Amino acid sequence: MPRVVTLTTDFGSGSGYVAELKGRLLHAKTPFSLVDISHDVPPHDIRAAAWLVGQGCPAFPSGTLHIVVVDPGVGTDRGLVWARLGTPEWHQDFLCPDNGVLTLALQRLPLIAARRITVPAEAAATFHGRDVLAPIAVRLLDGLSPESLGEPLHDLARLHWPAPEETPTGIQGEVIHIDAFGNLVTNLPASLLPRLKAAGRLRLGPHEITTIVRTYGEAAAGTAVALVGSQGFIEAAIVEGRADERLNARLGTPVALNLFSL
Amino acid sequence: MPRVVTLTTDFGSGSGYVAELKGRLLHAKTPFSLVDISHDVPPHDIRAAAWLVGQGCPAFPSGTLHIVVVDPGVGTDRGLVWARLGTPEWHQDFLCPDNGVLTLALQRLPLIAARRITVPAEAAATFHGRDVLAPIAVRLLDGLSPESLGEPLHDLARLHWPAPEETPTGIQGEVIHIDAFGNLVTNLPASLLPRLKAAGRLRLGPHEITTIVRTYGEAAAGTAVALVGSQGFIEAAIVEGRADERLNARLGTPVALNLFSL
Amino acid sequence: MPRVVTLTTDFGSGSGYVAELKGRLLHAKTPFSLVDISHDVPPHDIRAAAWLVGQGCPAFPSGTLHIVVVDPGVGTDRGLVWARLGTPEWHQDFLCPDNGVLTLALQRLPLIAARRITVPAEAAATFHGRDVLAPIAVRLLDGLSPESLGEPLHDLARLHWPAPEETPTGIQGEVIHIDAFGNLVTNLPASLLPRLKAAGRLRLGPHEITTIVRTYGEAAAGTAVALVGSQGFIEAAIVEGRADERLNARLGTPVALNLFSL
Repeated sequence: MPRVVTLTTDFGSGSGYVAELKGRLLHAKTPFSLVDISHDVPPHDIRAAAWLVGQGCPAFPSGTLHIVVVDPGVGTDRGLVWARLGTPEWHQDFLCPDNGVLTLALQRLPLIAARRITVPAEAAATFHGRDVLAPIAVRLLDGLSPESLGEPLHDLARLHWPAPEETPTGIQGEVIHIDAFGNLVTNLPASLLPRLKAAGRLRLGPHEITTIVRTYGEAAAGTAVALVGSQGFIEAAIVEGRADERLNARLGTPVALNLFSL
Repeated sequence: MPRVVTLTTDFGSGSGYVAELKGRLLHAKTPFSLVDISHDVPPHDIRAAAWLVGQGCPAFPSGTLHIVVVDPGVGTDRGLVWARLGTPEWHQDFLCPDNGVLTLALQRLPLIAARRITVPAEAAATFHGRDVLAPIAVRLLDGLSPESLGEPLHDLARLHWPAPEETPTGIQGEVIHIDAFGNLVTNLPASLLPRLKAAGRLRLGPHEITTIVRTYGEAAAGTAVALVGSQGFIEAAIVEGRADERLNARLGTPVALNLFSL
Repeated sequence: MPRVVTLTTDFGSGSGYVAELKGRLLHAKTPFSLVDISHDVPPHDIRAAAWLVGQGCPAFPSGTLHIVVVDPGVGTDRGLVWARLGTPEWHQDFLCPDNGVLTLALQRLPLIAARRITVPAEAAATFHGRDVLAPIAVRLLDGLSPESLGEPLHDLARLHWPAPEETPTGIQGEVIHIDAFGNLVTNLPASLLPRLKAAGRLRLGPHEITTIVRTYGEAAAGTAVALVGSQGFIEAAIVEGRADERLNARLGTPVALNLFSL
């Protein structure tokens, strides 16, 4: 396959901003595969973009370039960056504002190198994706060395990302992602599955989920289940239903895993 | 053109699951064209996926590989299959759960061959699209023979698909698809057009549609019309309006074509 | 890069009509890059399509072919056209109904040539995108000369497009586009920025916006601001909020720029 370039934005699917971004990218002389990750990140939601990029990027072939434009600070003095994450054998490249959109990716992949990008004076102050990042992507695709982009950076902005906590009565976590099925992904890692099984229940807000399964279809439709999801985290779901609605949960809803019920 | 691979899922447009699926596919060494058919199939709606795949696949070039992941039974003992439909000269290939998603495609194209896919032990129990189908697609693109995928299958799961019925007073059918314009596609085939013209009316639930046209623009905006749609079925529509809302129709709403009004 | 083909329709993202259109296009022997601009143009909204095509097409490489199918008059005697806009050095090609969808593109790029397309008798009367435009696109990609498509046309249909007006008390314009962020794009060109600054305020319906910025992030979240947007027009926005909702504006809401307040 030719090199892959992905796009993650909050421009809205089918918006003209996406068209402009793609049009500029397609000026590259070198063939590449252009892949939409999402253009429906909620407006200005850096955290949602960080989840999506962190979830998706490990699946891509080495050398993939991810362009991420969720950028409420466009035109202000927040930096724009090029970054390379991974290992020498398998790495992913990024062009994005330095506003935390790489937080989850940086938890999963070590930072190899980063450069601060200089914004040219003629760029529209409200659309750096089109006027700064796309032309740089074209030049990178056509052979420009990332070293020439600007001064090296030794770290990148990171959002506070909630981590589970061990407490005297158990482990406290929270819902960190809700997928399109309404499944509730928590920040409790898969390694806690033995403790979940020993406890026999997952607390989610005021609810207790006592059916622990390996996959959704193992319980009857409508059952509330806890399982290890495909992202490597403990998940709460309603079989063939929406757990977010049925269990009245949202991002940040507390979950707890107690070895001994009180 | 290079070979075409299409994706049809209920993961939600812009979801990280789609990104992961695409990322894995793009590991193929052989170039291919990756085409999204839909990621917005209603969750777990095998029937809607079957419509979409059956509608779309006849349009694609021979050798296209369609990956369909609408899979409420993921991780249970429902099978995963590779299938080839069509003729020796023009065929379409599929990777999907064996749960009926090919029902309409199988009505339109004969089954040439199918194989049951063995699920490796290390696959995440909740995401066979990413962990089973995508790696197989990569190997098929890079030259693997489908015969090596698993044991041959002689038939595939099919949904009950409503067929029109001849009754003493006429032909009874139903609405089987509602498109993005709100047009109501029925299961009455285009071959019934002479009878529609002779009857002079299409009954749709409690409504009678008496304007029969060749195309939407032949009647004034707001008119309820019956016509042969682009799918080869008789359709009810409101010119420049939404027939589903105006005529209060949904999937399964009965339609009837009576030669003689009672 | 290979040649680029873009799609703009009102078929609905993920609809089977889009799948059929893509499937037919992918029969071209010559490789090309297939890019979705939008399939979520509001049904039959020629004006919205005209905005999108006019906004997006200037960004694409020369020789890009844009297929635009927003076509309430499908099957009636409205024409189908091939058109080339731009200059001999950089041009964009279009296949579309001659119903005004190129209005904004024609304001931005001069018409070089156009041909009226003959509709074959066997085309489905309700889906010329699939049955007429896609096969022609395939033949054009594979080398057909546009001159052979049909008789030359010297002009194309255009919608009435609202222009700002100079009045004794100032300049009157209106909101002509609302983007996915809720930002209100007016038809007042960027060249009026000095007058906006001199006036110190933009009137928008009953509101007065007095904070004039270079980019959104220059004012606090929630502030109503006026600025020159990336499309080259004066825009009204709420920093990190939705101006359409907060300022109760829609397409056509009047805006005014008065040098002297009354």
